[in-house]
Amino acid sequence: MAKDFTTRAENYSQWYNDIVKKADLAENSAVRGCMVIKPYGYAIWEKMHDALDRMFKETGHSNAYFPLFIPKSFLSREADHVEGFAKECAVVTHYRLKNAPDGSGVVVDPEAKLEEELIVRPTSETIIWSTYKNWIQSYRDLPILCNQWANVVRWEMRTRLFLRTAEFLWQEGHTAHETREEAEEETRKMLEVYANFAENYMAMPVIKGVKSPNERFAGALDTYCIEALMQDGKALQAGTSHFLGQNFAKAFDVKFLNKENKLEYVWATSWGVSTRLMGALIMTHSDDNGLVLPPKLAPIQVVIIPIYKNEDQKKMISEKVASLVGKLKAKGISVKYDDDDSQRSGWKFNEYELKGIPVRIAIGPRDLENKTAEVFRRDTLEKQSYDFDTLEKTIENLLTDIQKNLYERSLKFRESSIRKADTWDEFVSLLDNEGGFVYAHWDGTTETEEKIKELAKATIRCIPFDNPLEEGKCILTGKPSKQRVLFARAY
Amino acid sequence: MAKDFTTRAENYSQWYNDIVKKADLAENSAVRGCMVIKPYGYAIWEKMHDALDRMFKETGHSNAYFPLFIPKSFLSREADHVEGFAKECAVVTHYRLKNAPDGSGVVVDPEAKLEEELIVRPTSETIIWSTYKNWIQSYRDLPILCNQWANVVRWEMRTRLFLRTAEFLWQEGHTAHETREEAEEETRKMLEVYANFAENYMAMPVIKGVKSPNERFAGALDTYCIEALMQDGKALQAGTSHFLGQNFAKAFDVKFLNKENKLEYVWATSWGVSTRLMGALIMTHSDDNGLVLPPKLAPIQVVIIPIYKNEDQKKMISEKVASLVGKLKAKGISVKYDDDDSQRSGWKFNEYELKGIPVRIAIGPRDLENKTAEVFRRDTLEKQSYDFDTLEKTIENLLTDIQKNLYERSLKFRESSIRKADTWDEFVSLLDNEGGFVYAHWDGTTETEEKIKELAKATIRCIPFDNPLEEGKCILTGKPSKQRVLFARAY
Repeated sequence: MAKDFTTRAENYSQWYNDIVKKADLAENSAVRGCMVIKPYGYAIWEKMHDALDRMFKETGHSNAYFPLFIPKSFLSREADHVEGFAKECAVVTHYRLKNAPDGSGVVVDPEAKLEEELIVRPTSETIIWSTYKNWIQSYRDLPILCNQWANVVRWEMRTRLFLRTAEFLWQEGHTAHETREEAEEETRKMLEVYANFAENYMAMPVIKGVKSPNERFAGALDTYCIEALMQDGKALQAGTSHFLGQNFAKAFDVKFLNKENKLEYVWATSWGVSTRLMGALIMTHSDDNGLVLPPKLAPIQVVIIPIYKNEDQKKMISEKVASLVGKLKAKGISVKYDDDDSQRSGWKFNEYELKGIPVRIAIGPRDLENKTAEVFRRDTLEKQSYDFDTLEKTIENLLTDIQKNLYERSLKFRESSIRKADTWDEFVSLLDNEGGFVYAHWDGTTETEEKIKELAKATIRCIPFDNPLEEGKCILTGKPSKQRVLFARAY
Repeated sequence: MAKDFTTRAENYSQWYNDIVKKADLAENSAVRGCMVIKPYGYAIWEKMHDALDRMFKETGHSNAYFPLFIPKSFLSREADHVEGFAKECAVVTHYRLKNAPDGSGVVVDPEAKLEEELIVRPTSETIIWSTYKNWIQSYRDLPILCNQWANVVRWEMRTRLFLRTAEFLWQEGHTAHETREEAEEETRKMLEVYANFAENYMAMPVIKGVKSPNERFAGALDTYCIEALMQDGKALQAGTSHFLGQNFAKAFDVKFLNKENKLEYVWATSWGVSTRLMGALIMTHSDDNGLVLPPKLAPIQVVIIPIYKNEDQKKMISEKVASLVGKLKAKGISVKYDDDDSQRSGWKFNEYELKGIPVRIAIGPRDLENKTAEVFRRDTLEKQSYDFDTLEKTIENLLTDIQKNLYERSLKFRESSIRKADTWDEFVSLLDNEGGFVYAHWDGTTETEEKIKELAKATIRCIPFDNPLEEGKCILTGKPSKQRVLFARAY
């Protein structure tokens, strides 16, 4: 296949950049660290948005919208939170420009300095809890189950499209509860929603677990996460759900009268996934021919390409295709008929392969005679001829099969990439030579965790929910340990 | 009806604020000029979003996403644009905070000053055209038909919820074309989409027209608009569509090889509507009992309230209602059954009236006996008893009827509020005593337009598309005029 991009084996990182570019997903903008999400990339994000939004609503959540800006002093209210988020952020200091005296353009008007600087939200706990204070008086006002779809800014120095950008799009859920138990249940429920989305829509297997204290969200008592494995053996945190305890309620003095008529601080959770999932999606399934999309997130699930030598042939094919298009659409399948004369079919084959369209149907004069069509599936790159008259059913089954196959293929890879290490040398050797998750004993201290990170560039991805207890010795310090935890080098 | 808010007659402006607050639509935030859109308000905005988004896609547009930040120098590239937008904007000057030496919190780190300040987008023409430069080489790359759903910031000094806020949500379409004709056609097409949305979804009649040069978007050759009339006789600009000519293509050097193989600047349009439409929606239909929503934009179209004295009665009613709910949902009607015991039915009646639910159904034991239900329509405040067994059909028709009635009622009011003035005294008297649109002659100069604005606080809302030519004299200067234009005091 003719193409001008790098293979995974040659250079995985370059392969990723090439796919993002060639499949028209996103590009860097004139503003350092900020990306432009191009129409095709955005259409995939819209599919993610719609599926997640439906799942949030089905679990009782409503969307709302809170300010882009956060007063600087709000960040300082919660001690851990300010440590985590104040360091790299966009700071608004002025509210006006004026013409430069020398006519060279516009300059900041020094007269228009804000009394208190505003931070472009890196996450919205503080502004939201300052708002919830006015919404909550009694247990009757609880729970509050809000979600927000928004842009956020974290001033990253080294950025990569989708994976790490200064501005990104995300959703952030922020809930308020009467009891610790209810908040913890919500935290887990939303992690399940994320895992369900990752596995059933993105066809991306994930490991559910809890972060070590060191890797917690700044201000949380517990951070749950889903961790996925990319094809290069590096892990990627795909979503987090935080049990915030009463930290933000205390920081913003949000109390409620409970059923016993006593004042109590409110319990909180927050949870989010971002356009980073686009990077995870790309790196989970795509191959050296380009993007591979699971049918449930493909903006176009089926493309039909007519093969013809003259207008008569084209006309006959188009008539035949029209009824097929109708039948596919009736089944809720998104389909594009590309009869553009300005491009050759070879170019089209290549283009739709690059863009990850799950199924391609080609129909030529011979097919018309034989009442068949040639069907190509993007996941396995297999071509097969099918009976035209029952094609809509064939395609429907094929889409289900592709969705399933992508998940199973990724799961198989992930399962074969979890290895145990019992010594430091084994640990480093596995990371260097095999990648993937390394399941090893750790003495439970932040000090050791940081030392391991420094020496081996690996972090604790999570302690899986279903982790068995097992006596052992920390791979670094040899101190006793009660369970293995999951290490990996990560995005 | 028991309520604690102002009537329109008492104080229209206070009435508006009360409705926004009592119907739980939005509130001011801790950040000056920025609003919190509450779940119920946001649910209405989502209905608007979904309807518009569908219409944009049906007319061939795709969504994309461009950076929140605009380099300061970009604003200066287009001379009119910088005049219009540089004056009141949020300026990011630093990218880091640090702990205050005195331990009092965090302060801006002077070391982290940006080389070039970034502006939080007030509108995205500049960042988008700097991007389009890389997307466009030949006529084959055209047209580009992009839309963006985003937040924007304009540093307004006097703000009002939804109507004028520092941050607001909107969509902005940005298209690129080969020819002037095609761009002009796009500009008009999108205005038609807006008019269609305003009239058929918001049930809000609008006048389509072109702005006077003075009221044009900063950087446009022509601005088309839809103008609506609020119940207090003030006009509200509900949407604009701009023909930008080659201004932004020239500012960002965006040329394409045309079919004759010659380099030419690209032609542009942009068009937008914002959360301001929420304000327009409220002020078009609502009454002294609260919000009134057209069924097509109501998050809940029908609420069903059981009237019972004991659990047995409640159980019987609930069983009966379950089948009705199923039938309504099958028709795509959104319905809520409120059998919450903690509130009395009188409170519920009041609450749903306040929130503008189009149809309320009440069912009690007597209704069960008679196989009827009491149906209340929010637009006319009329109650009527209907046969229960055919209720889903009755309700379906009623929703259609309410949508139609709201439009016709507003249209009648609007039609009766367009008056002609031939002298200055008449003009001022109409504005002072009647409000509404005043159709009057104007000499065509910006100078006169500004003088009229200064003296009478009225602006030219638009020159309607279908405006007849008619000889006359300017109401202010007496100079000859070829047509009347539409004046009003406006939001």
